[in-house]
Amino acid sequence: MDSPIKISIIGSGNLATQLGFALHKEGYFISQVYSRSQKNASILSKKLKAEAITDFKKLSKDSSIYIIAVKDDAIESVAKQLKLKDQIVVHTSGSVSMDVLKKYSKNYGVFYPLQTFSKDKQSNFKVIPICIEASNNNTSTTLQYFAKSISSNVQKVNSAQRKKIHLAAVFACNFSNHMYAIAEKLLAKDKLSFDLLKPLIEETANKTINTKPSKAQTGPAIRNDKKTMDAHLKVLLKEKDLQKIYELISKSIVKTKSISPLRSK
Amino acid sequence: MDSPIKISIIGSGNLATQLGFALHKEGYFISQVYSRSQKNASILSKKLKAEAITDFKKLSKDSSIYIIAVKDDAIESVAKQLKLKDQIVVHTSGSVSMDVLKKYSKNYGVFYPLQTFSKDKQSNFKVIPICIEASNNNTSTTLQYFAKSISSNVQKVNSAQRKKIHLAAVFACNFSNHMYAIAEKLLAKDKLSFDLLKPLIEETANKTINTKPSKAQTGPAIRNDKKTMDAHLKVLLKEKDLQKIYELISKSIVKTKSISPLRSK
Repeated sequence: MDSPIKISIIGSGNLATQLGFALHKEGYFISQVYSRSQKNASILSKKLKAEAITDFKKLSKDSSIYIIAVKDDAIESVAKQLKLKDQIVVHTSGSVSMDVLKKYSKNYGVFYPLQTFSKDKQSNFKVIPICIEASNNNTSTTLQYFAKSISSNVQKVNSAQRKKIHLAAVFACNFSNHMYAIAEKLLAKDKLSFDLLKPLIEETANKTINTKPSKAQTGPAIRNDKKTMDAHLKVLLKEKDLQKIYELISKSIVKTKSISPLRSK
Repeated sequence: MDSPIKISIIGSGNLATQLGFALHKEGYFISQVYSRSQKNASILSKKLKAEAITDFKKLSKDSSIYIIAVKDDAIESVAKQLKLKDQIVVHTSGSVSMDVLKKYSKNYGVFYPLQTFSKDKQSNFKVIPICIEASNNNTSTTLQYFAKSISSNVQKVNSAQRKKIHLAAVFACNFSNHMYAIAEKLLAKDKLSFDLLKPLIEETANKTINTKPSKAQTGPAIRNDKKTMDAHLKVLLKEKDLQKIYELISKSIVKTKSISPLRSK
């Protein structure tokens, strides 16, 4: 790009970090990184060759796009402090309505990358679905170009749909990770290595690429194998919380069986 | 192998199929495949260049290893029909005690591949942990050689440990798959494609390779973001079962927070 598009990033968490990397790599000029924490602002801005700021008064007024990547409850209070005219402002949240930005610029929208991010694990944005919503056609077009420059999977999605997608993502990502964490805990109690489960976890996730999860269910519950389920509940006798989770999810799996074909081991 | 080792496989399900493929590929001579179903016995035996049998009376008496890969409750009744002398017999179950085979040969054991199998998705056995248990040292040595010939991750594990591993696997695999299935259902209701979640599911699983899941938790529950959790519960208002699951798992995640460092988005 000869004259790179100027971007301001508000936030320095996992998403801000990985989105910043992807934009920087694509040739965007990240003008500033804002964070309440001087340390976090400095760490990220150094990597993006941006200016670190901790005071909204220092915010540059001429960025093309302002990306608010902060905690959901902080989005609106941040937007209020930006004092924009008609520059584009977006938030990156799965669950917050677009309209929280309404009062703060006429060109606003949502830029929601459907992924789980870590500061220290590089994300491959090319494959990440980016859900776009905008206050008007012009902003929508700009945001689509912007998103397509870093991802090959850009979707126009309204606020209601985005909330559903976010809820589905909580099950598919946050809750499945908690299932891994419970497995980790159970193995640790017997000094067994979590490494044992890694090929299984990888394969279970990989299966969804070719098979719908509803068709890929295996295990004692889908076979309605009561003997094994009872044995498992006994092992969890002193872990009432885990016992409850085991029971509830197993019941939920058994219920799906009535509408699926029978499976063998 | 000049004089290939002769194997009999009892069962024709997902595990029997994939284990059969791996053994066949490694040069083992699969002498027979038994199944109650003539069709299933034929399909698998053709692929393994084995004889299909549906009658235990036709079982060849001179295989080196008899692998029982049938449903848990059928293992013992199958073992009883094998009429072995001292040939090695193993079952492949995560949750059944080794001793159900005790009466049927002095050389018995367990050969438990820790993976989820499909008939039509080729498994890479090299990376699959195989948990071995045996009734005596000699059988243990043979089973270890046997397992190491197809996998580079062979573990000696006793029945009690194996049960714990199996329970952990139910959480890590069966329950996480059910979380995917719930996500699939939620998206389908709004005609949204499950494809949207595939990169997220893949990344969540990949994270466990470098980070313990207990340290990788993200989402509203670990942030104790009550506003988002309440909004999600509202979306699930007409899905009482899913609402219960959402609440219970979220609570369980929130509880882990008290012992983990704080996280930002």
